[in-house]
Amino acid sequence: MTRTIKLAVVAGDGIGPEVVAEGLKVLDVALAGSDVRVERTPFDLGAARWHRTGETLTDEDLAAIREHDAILLGAIGDPTVPSGVLERGLLLKLRFALDHYVNLRPSRVYPGVPTPLADPGDVDFVVVREGTEGPYVGNGGAIRVGTPHEVANEVSVNTAFGVERVVRDAFARAQARPRKKLTLVHKHNVLVHAGHLWRRTVEAVGAEFPDVAVDYLHVDAATIFLVTDPARFDVIVTDNLFGDILTDLAAAISGGIGLAASGNINPDRTTPSMFEPVHGSAPDIAGQGKADPTATVLSVALMLEHLGLTDQARRISDAVAADIAERDGAARSTSAVGDALAARVAERVPA
Amino acid sequence: MTRTIKLAVVAGDGIGPEVVAEGLKVLDVALAGSDVRVERTPFDLGAARWHRTGETLTDEDLAAIREHDAILLGAIGDPTVPSGVLERGLLLKLRFALDHYVNLRPSRVYPGVPTPLADPGDVDFVVVREGTEGPYVGNGGAIRVGTPHEVANEVSVNTAFGVERVVRDAFARAQARPRKKLTLVHKHNVLVHAGHLWRRTVEAVGAEFPDVAVDYLHVDAATIFLVTDPARFDVIVTDNLFGDILTDLAAAISGGIGLAASGNINPDRTTPSMFEPVHGSAPDIAGQGKADPTATVLSVALMLEHLGLTDQARRISDAVAADIAERDGAARSTSAVGDALAARVAERVPA
Ligand SMILES: CC(C)[C@H](C(=O)O)[C@@H](O)C(=O)O
Ligand SMILES: CC(C)[C@H](C(=O)O)[C@@H](O)C(=O)O
Repeated sequence: MTRTIKLAVVAGDGIGPEVVAEGLKVLDVALAGSDVRVERTPFDLGAARWHRTGETLTDEDLAAIREHDAILLGAIGDPTVPSGVLERGLLLKLRFALDHYVNLRPSRVYPGVPTPLADPGDVDFVVVREGTEGPYVGNGGAIRVGTPHEVANEVSVNTAFGVERVVRDAFARAQARPRKKLTLVHKHNVLVHAGHLWRRTVEAVGAEFPDVAVDYLHVDAATIFLVTDPARFDVIVTDNLFGDILTDLAAAISGGIGLAASGNINPDRTTPSMFEPVHGSAPDIAGQGKADPTATVLSVALMLEHLGLTDQARRISDAVAADIAERDGAARSTSAVGDALAARVAERVPA
Repeated sequence: MTRTIKLAVVAGDGIGPEVVAEGLKVLDVALAGSDVRVERTPFDLGAARWHRTGETLTDEDLAAIREHDAILLGAIGDPTVPSGVLERGLLLKLRFALDHYVNLRPSRVYPGVPTPLADPGDVDFVVVREGTEGPYVGNGGAIRVGTPHEVANEVSVNTAFGVERVVRDAFARAQARPRKKLTLVHKHNVLVHAGHLWRRTVEAVGAEFPDVAVDYLHVDAATIFLVTDPARFDVIVTDNLFGDILTDLAAAISGGIGLAASGNINPDRTTPSMFEPVHGSAPDIAGQGKADPTATVLSVALMLEHLGLTDQARRISDAVAADIAERDGAARSTSAVGDALAARVAERVPA
């Protein structure tokens, strides 16, 4: 019996299409010879569409995307579009509309990977970033704009419902990992209302996971440990904005954003989850075949894992680890990296 | 003619009193033989007072502190006090009531200093963190607390008045530095209202400083550069929360929070400015003579600079640089470090 995965492909802007092409190449190889087929639908979303039509994501686009099992996204954003238009109107709209409340971002220092740290230690943690609340809700506004009396506010909205579900997901992930450790990162000494909600929720949900050790760090202190002792972390759970900041830093210390994968996941599986590299559209190197597609390839692995195709996911991440171990710093084109990874995955396909 | 500086001393909690004692020791030596006298008033503020009286900072305390020329603060915070009580009720209350809108935090990698980075490069930048607005205003609240329907909000408030004055201060500082470069850090693609106010303000004020080069980074990208290329920064201007996060990270890469000094400055000089190490009260090592007082000593140097005593300030920072260059990693007690720094400052006192 053949299983068909309906995949919505949002290649996006800048280097997005280049890295997505390699992600799909590796995906095809990983599934070759299996009973799983992928049916891809490309979605023309991003800067070009906006310039042409003024549209970011229409109701029709969203309805069509909902008919899929997963989304692979390259990168969104372009300096020719006013800041925020594509981020709020497309990328965040997808995350919010599809209720991607778990933004999953693993960090691992692969043997041989270049890192700015003198001695990173054995780094292997995952950030569970809340994806549908916090300062990202778009609940801001301004009065007297452009005058000396302007006031611009941004509201971080946090609900028991929203915090509890992501915290429970993070505990479950921690419980399934060998070290079973969860660190809440917030700033409850300043953001007392939101912070105390997070804190109480971790305490309450933690009672259901007695075998998971719980730790707390203020966000400022967490950045210190991410550079002085990143190996201490196992699962980090945090809000949308702190998660944004911490995961870029985490990427920087573990091989750079060229390697950082992410999943925007709806664990309830009522909507397609979305997989994307953490990096942006990098307009400065777009179209030059210089982008590293590894983060997208690892995002494909996260997608396969989410879809229950654990073996195929593992083959991809093993291929990446093997490739990284042999990298010598010489520049390779985007497609050369994709080819190399595809070849390694092919080697690993069981006969 | 003798000049008298009225100094309010808030030693605070944990290691606060220990490091403040060394800061004052070095201050005395730096001013010895000059025509500047320091008249100190200790203020009993912090956890012990709160436990005894339930008070954090009374109107009388504040009125008395206002009568001073400057404040030296050790550290505030204690795990026996509910989170937020002393931070909001004392530390942030001082910063807000005294309108410390420039939170100045220099970062320098002194030769010989241990850093977690393999190759930090020539790091010498200063973060100008806004100190009286943003998510720190305490404009949050929650409903249905403790129920499954709780909603907890935190409001970031940003005004043209507040943003413009700190941006102007940052530009002036950039102009006075050899590299003349200013980097705005924000997240204007998500926090569009606040972000665009900051952005427009930097553009407008920048027109008055045509010789200062201006750059922009999203806060997540800024954390990447702080570990991959911190030498690129000269002056960073940013909001209260981003500044909190970036300065802890900056401290971590440039020798640790044992060295990070800060000034909470009111450039209009209508109130006393406050100088404090970036580190916290570190209850785990309090009372053991293990805390490094260098950050407090460097905060004293910032204070002297603010008070126009530039030569004395320089003697202290030179003494710190010389001491760091000869540190061999052997543990020294808090007072031993203070003594060593005081001795070096004494050597430098002009005959
Ligand atoms: C592009 C931007 C809106 C986005 C975010 O802030 O979430 C990005 O930084 C990310 O981390 O995926
Ligand atoms: C103690 C806390 C309220 C404070 C802050 O967040 O500003 C501290 O982290 C700092 O950076 O001075």
